[in-house]
Amino acid sequence: MQAIEPEPIYDVAHLAHVELLTPDLDASLGFFRDLLGMEETARAGGSVYLRGYEEQYHHSLKLTAAAEAGAGHVAWRARSAQALQRRVAAIEAAGLGRGWIDGDLGHGRAFRFVTPEGHPMEIFWEVEYAATPEGKATALRNRPQRRPAAGVPIRRIDHLNLMVADTALCRDFMIDVLGFRERERVMGGPNVVASWLAVTNLSHDIALVPEPTPARGRFHHVALHYTSLQHLYDLAELAREAGIRIETGPGRHGIGGAAFLYLIEPGGNRIELMGDPGYMVFDPSWRTVVWDASELAAAVVWTGASVPDSFWVYGTPDAAAPGEATAA
Amino acid sequence: MQAIEPEPIYDVAHLAHVELLTPDLDASLGFFRDLLGMEETARAGGSVYLRGYEEQYHHSLKLTAAAEAGAGHVAWRARSAQALQRRVAAIEAAGLGRGWIDGDLGHGRAFRFVTPEGHPMEIFWEVEYAATPEGKATALRNRPQRRPAAGVPIRRIDHLNLMVADTALCRDFMIDVLGFRERERVMGGPNVVASWLAVTNLSHDIALVPEPTPARGRFHHVALHYTSLQHLYDLAELAREAGIRIETGPGRHGIGGAAFLYLIEPGGNRIELMGDPGYMVFDPSWRTVVWDASELAAAVVWTGASVPDSFWVYGTPDAAAPGEATAA
Amino acid sequence: MQAIEPEPIYDVAHLAHVELLTPDLDASLGFFRDLLGMEETARAGGSVYLRGYEEQYHHSLKLTAAAEAGAGHVAWRARSAQALQRRVAAIEAAGLGRGWIDGDLGHGRAFRFVTPEGHPMEIFWEVEYAATPEGKATALRNRPQRRPAAGVPIRRIDHLNLMVADTALCRDFMIDVLGFRERERVMGGPNVVASWLAVTNLSHDIALVPEPTPARGRFHHVALHYTSLQHLYDLAELAREAGIRIETGPGRHGIGGAAFLYLIEPGGNRIELMGDPGYMVFDPSWRTVVWDASELAAAVVWTGASVPDSFWVYGTPDAAAPGEATAA
Amino acid sequence: MQAIEPEPIYDVAHLAHVELLTPDLDASLGFFRDLLGMEETARAGGSVYLRGYEEQYHHSLKLTAAAEAGAGHVAWRARSAQALQRRVAAIEAAGLGRGWIDGDLGHGRAFRFVTPEGHPMEIFWEVEYAATPEGKATALRNRPQRRPAAGVPIRRIDHLNLMVADTALCRDFMIDVLGFRERERVMGGPNVVASWLAVTNLSHDIALVPEPTPARGRFHHVALHYTSLQHLYDLAELAREAGIRIETGPGRHGIGGAAFLYLIEPGGNRIELMGDPGYMVFDPSWRTVVWDASELAAAVVWTGASVPDSFWVYGTPDAAAPGEATAA
Repeated sequence: MQAIEPEPIYDVAHLAHVELLTPDLDASLGFFRDLLGMEETARAGGSVYLRGYEEQYHHSLKLTAAAEAGAGHVAWRARSAQALQRRVAAIEAAGLGRGWIDGDLGHGRAFRFVTPEGHPMEIFWEVEYAATPEGKATALRNRPQRRPAAGVPIRRIDHLNLMVADTALCRDFMIDVLGFRERERVMGGPNVVASWLAVTNLSHDIALVPEPTPARGRFHHVALHYTSLQHLYDLAELAREAGIRIETGPGRHGIGGAAFLYLIEPGGNRIELMGDPGYMVFDPSWRTVVWDASELAAAVVWTGASVPDSFWVYGTPDAAAPGEATAA
Repeated sequence: MQAIEPEPIYDVAHLAHVELLTPDLDASLGFFRDLLGMEETARAGGSVYLRGYEEQYHHSLKLTAAAEAGAGHVAWRARSAQALQRRVAAIEAAGLGRGWIDGDLGHGRAFRFVTPEGHPMEIFWEVEYAATPEGKATALRNRPQRRPAAGVPIRRIDHLNLMVADTALCRDFMIDVLGFRERERVMGGPNVVASWLAVTNLSHDIALVPEPTPARGRFHHVALHYTSLQHLYDLAELAREAGIRIETGPGRHGIGGAAFLYLIEPGGNRIELMGDPGYMVFDPSWRTVVWDASELAAAVVWTGASVPDSFWVYGTPDAAAPGEATAA
Repeated sequence: MQAIEPEPIYDVAHLAHVELLTPDLDASLGFFRDLLGMEETARAGGSVYLRGYEEQYHHSLKLTAAAEAGAGHVAWRARSAQALQRRVAAIEAAGLGRGWIDGDLGHGRAFRFVTPEGHPMEIFWEVEYAATPEGKATALRNRPQRRPAAGVPIRRIDHLNLMVADTALCRDFMIDVLGFRERERVMGGPNVVASWLAVTNLSHDIALVPEPTPARGRFHHVALHYTSLQHLYDLAELAREAGIRIETGPGRHGIGGAAFLYLIEPGGNRIELMGDPGYMVFDPSWRTVVWDASELAAAVVWTGASVPDSFWVYGTPDAAAPGEATAA
Repeated sequence: MQAIEPEPIYDVAHLAHVELLTPDLDASLGFFRDLLGMEETARAGGSVYLRGYEEQYHHSLKLTAAAEAGAGHVAWRARSAQALQRRVAAIEAAGLGRGWIDGDLGHGRAFRFVTPEGHPMEIFWEVEYAATPEGKATALRNRPQRRPAAGVPIRRIDHLNLMVADTALCRDFMIDVLGFRERERVMGGPNVVASWLAVTNLSHDIALVPEPTPARGRFHHVALHYTSLQHLYDLAELAREAGIRIETGPGRHGIGGAAFLYLIEPGGNRIELMGDPGYMVFDPSWRTVVWDASELAAAVVWTGASVPDSFWVYGTPDAAAPGEATAA
């Protein structure tokens, strides 16, 4: 039935880590460590490195003190040394390469690049695995440490969401240059409004949503993964009393199908907590699911909480005039 | 840090379907359709085809009337037409090919082969997608049908488990010929006792556990996927009153980390229901987790129900003398 | 510490059943039976009787065909024959008695009365227990039948909510004449805005919320009980695709603490599904929790979904001008 | 239908607290405070007082250093000052009174008594409410403090289980002298083997199970309450890694219907965690559910984990010969 087509690119393995910039490093650290139960694995410069209790790498989140919130960079791991070279060549051919860096705590040399709208990214191959923290050894051999007894502990990083002015342009970059496959998209007439893309079996590893302001390169959210709905409700209680803003949720997405809770961490970045993985995609010839913009409500929220206006406007750095944060 | 190694094989995409043989087709069908909420998509010959409500293909389970329980065959989907050709060549080179068939309802031509111990398998590329059943259209565009209101509906097939006498031999076939990666294994001294392997980001797509009888090519279980612990408990109540044997669970595995419930369907085959996906693996350089046989209890059950002796002995076809089924 | 006070009244045991009026009996029946898994126990006149699978009485819900939606009557069971006589005397002394009826399917003679604003109620002692439905016998001796395998089955009725113009007046009737204790209330300056009252250990058996229209005696909702959050989300999916209006939820109440989902059944009545019992009260000297009207948002929704305007306006019978249902 | 009978006794309101004796106070305190998230409210003498985050009284658990594990005493709260006097008179008439004490931290004068087999109990009326701990104020007015962010926090105490040699004798004491109603019982021919009794709407407030040793007055377990199955599984993970013995579970009881997890706290006392309240009883004419001893397996475990032999033998104080604890 299916015609013979060129074989897909398999060179990007997964989202390895995200660096979040925060104007209040202590408060952001408290949020991720004490409420979300993440393990602090290192500090260096103005940065703190963290990971979830099921994560094997040195870190999946890097918090860096900065004047404004936002994503410092987004890191993808290549599938092999050869795959890294192929993607670097493709990125350079696209004119979006920014050159090699020596690496960072937790990984080897990395190639820096940007999306067509300037979101900073990197790709690397050599990685360092997590050490078992003192006093946290576990008999469960597939985890680097035991489950934390603090807050409502997340298991791992899941996906990323960026704001883009030209969705089609950025999507095509992810597909053509990096080898992502598109899973779902929203069309406004002939125009791509938003797109969900993956390199793994997750419903998506990255989403691109519309940027309504003149700003470019903004970050919408990073998603962290739980096991169950109960964890979303437990965390919502803790967050509320801790003065963490709950933007919306718990609820269930149409697109992707995950159960969600959106919080604004103390530094101002939006964080999604997932209480169900949603559907997974194993089909190598997956046909992109297409929604019309008129179906947006069902696409974004299938059941549960509605999505406030701020969800469509607020990103980091905040693009509002000084003194009027758009999420307030 | 990591040395440059040959690139992995990416040719097998995922477990596409399993054919279960049953001496009581009507009772087996009732189990999968009425208790597990699977959709019947076709009947032909002595077979009934079924799928979960989030599955996009024509079917993920084929029930076929037979004298004895067991797995008729296990089907893998290739990642591309080219990938299919490469794997067929490799299987033929290994001397385990059995030749092409024209296909079946739901997919195109397939290449039949066996494991070194004779478990029947096939691999194919061309696939047919599910039609939306009459009266079950959904506004949720990423599902082929709405969620059923019968039983406790499973979402999709997850993985497979086979009984093997020579674990290392069968594991090496899965790795070297089909391109699986090993995720966890249990060692009894220098010998591989059991092995968990994957081609997707799931903790495993296939497991190989020891065959304690002289029989060869037996089936241990197929796993179907739920969202939550609650579903396992709900189904356990329904199963108990419907006279379905609960072998063990709910509980949580050490290896893989999934929440489990094991039932024996009316035809005699063991079915695992999963109430949590367990951990996922995105790391392309994943280091196999190795357990010693002395750690088997923790490896198999991390928390919850214990595992009865039948779990290590019973498989289908039943290898017991006539009249003394080992699961009884 | 506490002074010696007169002993409380213990004469009302619990909410026994609610009669809902529906302009579309077939559609309402389909909702309660097929989506909520309730068992039909009898039909008589224009009524159908239903109960949850853990309920021991003949019925907890009576659906009656009528021109308009609303509550036909609300029935309380007395704690003893003597308790029944005492409450009848008190109701008659309050001038709100409407006389004895011979009973109904499922219970013996009952005394009819009204609240100060005319909501029809009854109280009775003699009760008939549920027969085990054909083919649904269970080995679980504390249930009259096995768990249903249809829809997302509710376990039992939980509580009731009525709309009142003079909250203090109706609340005092429930306390002074029927013996309820107040658990929580909302004050608007010196005025009681809303009140939650109980005779059991539930956080409340009845709630009284403000009536914003000139109508009197209107019904706000009846609540049915589940075990878990998962069931609320599962039902929300089924309801959405079945064309059942989801007014709000899932979410978690501040007052009472239950996880909620509000649906409008096809006849027009509002139904709350509870996915957690909330807190329970065992303290016989419980001090009423008092909220200021300015805290209403937190009192009504502690986490999760917001509450739409219709929640404060819509009740049955609908008080809107013909053709403009307030819930639309 | 029902004949007119004498009215029941309503004088005992609920289980107010349990004093557990522990040979390792620090380790026991760590268990309840750090793993179960209980709040320490006071220390005095060799005792520490604790409560769950939804509990309103000063404490529900008192831990006291002692040579051996066991229950120091079990405290019931009367429904009123008059109710207290009536029960004291009845206990004295039964010859089981031990006299008044001045009270303790958290409550006023209490009357001490024993069951016919010597289990120490008390009943009181005057109670002190919990103060909000420093820095833990909550906007949720029906809780004395915010939800903890430590361990997997229990919400409240639920029920108690005692070992008895003469079940009928002890049960009749609870019914005739204290006013409990029997909910379920297990019969071995003409003999009462075990009994579940309540004064609240819970399925039971106390259970009496057989004492297989010559010891008398032993404690089987106290149960603490969670919201969901997920919490049982989360706690089981924490307990396992903390070296806390998991005796059995998670699983679901037939009798009572609760989801359970049984742990042995570091002092040696058995603790049940409940992940579902089970069924509730509102019916004032509830007919005792009767099981035959041959049905015990289904009665105790409806689905999930089996119950080990230790469950029927081990209690505190341990009745085994020195050096051979029966739970080992």
